[in-house]
Amino acid sequence: MDSSSNVVLSTQEYNVVGTRPIRHDGTDKVTGRAPYGADFEMAGLLHGKVLRSPHAHARVKSIDVSKALAHPGVKAVVTAKDLPYAPDKIADFGESAANLKYVSNNILALDKALYKGHAVAAVAATSPHEAEEALALIDVEYEVLPPVLNTQDAMKDDATLLHNDLFTSFLGEKSDKASNVANHLRFQVGDVEKGFQEADVVVEREYHMATVHQGYIEPHNATALWNSDGKLTIWCSTQGSFVVRSTVAEVLRIPESSIKVVPMEIGGGFGGKIPVYLEPLAALLSRKTARPVKLVMSRAEVFESTGPTSGSYVKLKMGATKDGRITAAQAHMAYEAGAYPGSLIGAGTMCVFAPYEIENGLIDGYDVVVNKPKTAAYRAPGAPNAAFSAETVIDEICEKIGMDPIEFRLRNAAKEGTRRIDGPVFPRIGFMEVLEATKNHPHYSAPLEGPNRGRGMATGFWFNVGLQSSCNMSVNTDGTVTLVEGSTDIGGTRVAVAMQAAEVLGISAEDVHPSVVDTDSVGYTNVTGGSRTAFATGWAAYEAAQEVKRKLIERAAIVWEASIDDVEYDGGVLTHKSDPELRMTFKELAGKLLQTGGPISASSNVEPSGVGGAFATAIVDVEVDPDTGKVDVLRYTTVQDAGKAIHPSYVEGQMQGGAVQGIGWALNEEYFYNDKGEMANSSFLDYRMPTSLDVPMIDTVIVEVANPGHPYGARGVGEVPIVPPLPAIANAIHDAIGVRMGELPMSPGKILETLWEGE
Amino acid sequence: MDSSSNVVLSTQEYNVVGTRPIRHDGTDKVTGRAPYGADFEMAGLLHGKVLRSPHAHARVKSIDVSKALAHPGVKAVVTAKDLPYAPDKIADFGESAANLKYVSNNILALDKALYKGHAVAAVAATSPHEAEEALALIDVEYEVLPPVLNTQDAMKDDATLLHNDLFTSFLGEKSDKASNVANHLRFQVGDVEKGFQEADVVVEREYHMATVHQGYIEPHNATALWNSDGKLTIWCSTQGSFVVRSTVAEVLRIPESSIKVVPMEIGGGFGGKIPVYLEPLAALLSRKTARPVKLVMSRAEVFESTGPTSGSYVKLKMGATKDGRITAAQAHMAYEAGAYPGSLIGAGTMCVFAPYEIENGLIDGYDVVVNKPKTAAYRAPGAPNAAFSAETVIDEICEKIGMDPIEFRLRNAAKEGTRRIDGPVFPRIGFMEVLEATKNHPHYSAPLEGPNRGRGMATGFWFNVGLQSSCNMSVNTDGTVTLVEGSTDIGGTRVAVAMQAAEVLGISAEDVHPSVVDTDSVGYTNVTGGSRTAFATGWAAYEAAQEVKRKLIERAAIVWEASIDDVEYDGGVLTHKSDPELRMTFKELAGKLLQTGGPISASSNVEPSGVGGAFATAIVDVEVDPDTGKVDVLRYTTVQDAGKAIHPSYVEGQMQGGAVQGIGWALNEEYFYNDKGEMANSSFLDYRMPTSLDVPMIDTVIVEVANPGHPYGARGVGEVPIVPPLPAIANAIHDAIGVRMGELPMSPGKILETLWEGE
Repeated sequence: MDSSSNVVLSTQEYNVVGTRPIRHDGTDKVTGRAPYGADFEMAGLLHGKVLRSPHAHARVKSIDVSKALAHPGVKAVVTAKDLPYAPDKIADFGESAANLKYVSNNILALDKALYKGHAVAAVAATSPHEAEEALALIDVEYEVLPPVLNTQDAMKDDATLLHNDLFTSFLGEKSDKASNVANHLRFQVGDVEKGFQEADVVVEREYHMATVHQGYIEPHNATALWNSDGKLTIWCSTQGSFVVRSTVAEVLRIPESSIKVVPMEIGGGFGGKIPVYLEPLAALLSRKTARPVKLVMSRAEVFESTGPTSGSYVKLKMGATKDGRITAAQAHMAYEAGAYPGSLIGAGTMCVFAPYEIENGLIDGYDVVVNKPKTAAYRAPGAPNAAFSAETVIDEICEKIGMDPIEFRLRNAAKEGTRRIDGPVFPRIGFMEVLEATKNHPHYSAPLEGPNRGRGMATGFWFNVGLQSSCNMSVNTDGTVTLVEGSTDIGGTRVAVAMQAAEVLGISAEDVHPSVVDTDSVGYTNVTGGSRTAFATGWAAYEAAQEVKRKLIERAAIVWEASIDDVEYDGGVLTHKSDPELRMTFKELAGKLLQTGGPISASSNVEPSGVGGAFATAIVDVEVDPDTGKVDVLRYTTVQDAGKAIHPSYVEGQMQGGAVQGIGWALNEEYFYNDKGEMANSSFLDYRMPTSLDVPMIDTVIVEVANPGHPYGARGVGEVPIVPPLPAIANAIHDAIGVRMGELPMSPGKILETLWEGE
Repeated sequence: MDSSSNVVLSTQEYNVVGTRPIRHDGTDKVTGRAPYGADFEMAGLLHGKVLRSPHAHARVKSIDVSKALAHPGVKAVVTAKDLPYAPDKIADFGESAANLKYVSNNILALDKALYKGHAVAAVAATSPHEAEEALALIDVEYEVLPPVLNTQDAMKDDATLLHNDLFTSFLGEKSDKASNVANHLRFQVGDVEKGFQEADVVVEREYHMATVHQGYIEPHNATALWNSDGKLTIWCSTQGSFVVRSTVAEVLRIPESSIKVVPMEIGGGFGGKIPVYLEPLAALLSRKTARPVKLVMSRAEVFESTGPTSGSYVKLKMGATKDGRITAAQAHMAYEAGAYPGSLIGAGTMCVFAPYEIENGLIDGYDVVVNKPKTAAYRAPGAPNAAFSAETVIDEICEKIGMDPIEFRLRNAAKEGTRRIDGPVFPRIGFMEVLEATKNHPHYSAPLEGPNRGRGMATGFWFNVGLQSSCNMSVNTDGTVTLVEGSTDIGGTRVAVAMQAAEVLGISAEDVHPSVVDTDSVGYTNVTGGSRTAFATGWAAYEAAQEVKRKLIERAAIVWEASIDDVEYDGGVLTHKSDPELRMTFKELAGKLLQTGGPISASSNVEPSGVGGAFATAIVDVEVDPDTGKVDVLRYTTVQDAGKAIHPSYVEGQMQGGAVQGIGWALNEEYFYNDKGEMANSSFLDYRMPTSLDVPMIDTVIVEVANPGHPYGARGVGEVPIVPPLPAIANAIHDAIGVRMGELPMSPGKILETLWEGE
């Protein structure tokens, strides 16, 4: 088998789906024409800057903005008092009070600053420089408190508390003692004690994983214009314009329909551009000044003040028989939420053992607040931490029982009908096929020679999401179609969505013109995230195209004075079933629409449920320098079930991008905190993400096990490829130098420490 | 009857339709926030200016742009050679060759300049000033030809010809001798000779009507960005973004789907912002420079280089019996097309006798090219010229037979079933009711004392149009609805369209949020013109709302586990027919949509035919100064059938605006040409439009005879009010000073000339 060939188990033939047309926004992107949020200009524009807490944990005793306001360039200053949320109004906010408090206080610290970089005030001035000058004129009196920087410290009985009103919720019951644990989840199946007793071998390991950031190139930005009729327009970079709309509406307590969010092009998100930071500040400053106000973050602000992913502590135990059957699995997982509740622990617990059929399982998950920025989603959020733990324990079990790691996984692999410990039952999935393709890949059996070199493999799972998407579609008289969608396009989804409409109509992808529009101009569409856009917005495009097709058939029937049952539409051609003379192409009929009854449009909404889980594996070869601890990735192959790859180039792109992000996370990336809770490396110079010089070509194998829950069999593809690299590299390092790494990143220093510990 | 009360014959009760909510775009307009085309800014923007012919008629022998190109600020120059149309390519252009030639040559003169102001070249430079400097550096060699300035000269056998390939078309046959007459229309019924023999009185008069301009406040403007992938975006002020798209596509020979037209707010159009002037120039300049290029006209350019309405010559003859029955009517109508074929003669012939049942009629219409700008539509295009002739002849007949003018009109009025001379049969119309309301209005019988004062009345007809409109609609979870339309909003149509959706859904107009979007974001929608927008786009909104309603009923049925037949939707409330406990308001269900199956959107396309003609009358009192010839309008009342007034304030606004434009046209406005064909008054200082100081309050009476061809009974209302003022004022002048005016405008000079002729 050639390393570039894919494994296709889906037999359906398509004309457009599965091909590789040039993306519609390609020229705009490569020529620099595509308008990003920071490009936004408008008459009368003011520039905003944000004053941020220098302390990781401090009481805000007073804020004096009078000197800043006296600065000649300053037009307005806002603090938390300008936000509707106030502790004495809790009763007014109903059920959402607690969440509103957290969201609001994260946007502007009220009584406490909970991380270094926490926004305390914002200034609008006639230039960015004047706004920055004015920040220095704001006097904030802080009472500095000791910071809590990891879950284990935070969970101690005598830990300093971030919030005095946070009571752990466990199985729906709230504890009566305030703590730093917001939530304790538990999923259970069978009897783990019994399972471990049945095991021939049991491995238990502890894992510490540092906070990492998504590292998107484009910093957060927002411009707002609060009009005198109460209409608020926001231009920003976001993964979900409708989510920005609802969050801003909630935080500012205004109707969401009074807000129009215009999504500009987005320079990466990976989950980190779902939360809202600057938008409410821009809005409040615009309301005060009656002028448009723009805010753009610096890179340091992106690192220190937006949501990285959860650092975590995991203790994981698995038992297996000598012949490779998992008898029990148990995980204690504590994920950092950052300053406010809401880590990625839920997804972590859902994913940790999901690839395997497990009879006896127990998963405890803890959502723990610490003095770091509130965490956000990051590509398969929570799953890489989980897989790093589980997949390295499995590797150790395989080593102990002397079984090939893929063989072991094939023996335990989840398949259609397998029930996950957290409940759901798998539909048709492609895990077995992915494992087989990995086993059969020449990389897996290729010789690997030389000292300090090793090979590892691991698998990853991500459940994917469906959620809501909407499309509008109209037929142009030149035989093309316009497609309006609400999904911001991060990774080529305009073309993947357009292709699914083109397939229905029997026209080319180029003849479908997709536009991403504002929240006033399309139906509700949830975030570009959860690997859902090509899947769900693509499905919405499919449905709108089906509606257009129905209307075209009706129109042909009118033109031919026939019944709609007499009209056939196939491959972009309408024919009369019993009169072969009557035949029109899509383009011909499109050209006649205005003369035969008017234009044709359609609209669709979907909320698909059959997302189909995604599985991926990685095979990775590394070489470890025993003197410096530096790990070089020599070769990397990733295999993934895409269901059906709508646009294989972008599936491959996602697989490669996910692998590279995973490599960075595995080897280099981390937030360095000093003991005051100050991040010491908040620049791309010091926060080391891999560049093209640091990684080999990522070989990709797309496996296509059609997802029965999608018209074309597609599964989400964007997230799962970040999951396997962390454990695969750890397993490769073990293969190379014989040590098992329990910490992320596996940086040179950590490698050396681990090596020296073993000596 | 009180002068402010309306005549309501439509008995249907509505909640929203017929009320007067504040328009959604009101604040933006009055605070100056609404973005017009001239406000457009973009990085790298170049500024364009147009070189225009100083001669009314000249051969263009050569154009040398080399000096202009050498100007340091100049980035590109375009001439007609940059347009795809060329005489030797006629065969390539197929059926549309002739029209393409005219449209293309009007955008940039090729071999001949046919009016003073005809575009000859365009320049793009880094500033408007540099662009203007560069115009002076373009050398054009002209061979000046004698101009032809009115239809009577143009139709002479030995007239100078504008085009040597224009052969009069008459009843489908082309003449074999080139002329200045593009088209000769004829409509005929009965036998006019016999009819005139039956008459007791016959009046025949000649009319000369000067060229007038729509006089919109905002000059034409266009910005274009021709991207390197072939995508062309145009931002402009237009009555029809889709028409700009198709015209630009035709002129530049590119697919219309490669063009996105973004309609900016529009500062008036009245028909004059349908044609395309600057858009292709901006596009060509952008293609040459790879930068966005903006062009904005000066007021002089608007007068001299865009489409005014047709000047005209009419000879009209009517006969009637002593008891007031019209026995015959005949009209010879010659309308100026301007430089290229296509005057408003078609509409003029359709309207001239349309208000009356005429047994014997003959109408000849001539479309005549002259050395003036190509004419464009102007509010009820062609009808005011026609009515000025017919309604003053009728007034003279009434004088001769001693009959009240309203009585005479009632006796001959068209009604349901009357066939117009040009063919169509009237559906239910409200002309009789309008006449009765006029007769009963206190103004009609109020005493009018003092010397040189007189009262006149007249009627007007406009047929209205339907054409194509599309809408998209989505439900927001806060219980509001977004409405996307393609109709640019000139006179408050956002609110009138939104109200028709609100009525269906049982919510307030304020809870429907309308947006006017670009051509990529909504289905094909024809121009805002022909009094069609509130009628047809409103209908599209009605249909989209019906679809939303159906989907809401389906959703409620799912929530209640009921059949859709069990669910009733009335006044914004869903109820279970047999279980009164099950009840949800629209807002409640809207808030639950995302939890009960996803968002709800809808899309609609309409091409309604039952437009229903519009009738209006005017009663006007004038005082004529016999020494200066100045006419003061003392009192003005207009009565109009709106079918159903969707938003009465905007119906009244249209009635008042139309009346004032008609007063200006009647008394003051005209293009003054010297014998070289140069317009001598191309500024608002010299081209006298009425201001608020020149006109009295325009009293309005809305008559509501529901149009059976619309869901709410609406008729188009925007155009017909401009029709009656011209003849009503002429009739009032006759009543005041005893002379019959045969020329427009009835300016002081003309009044004195006419008075002196009579002495």
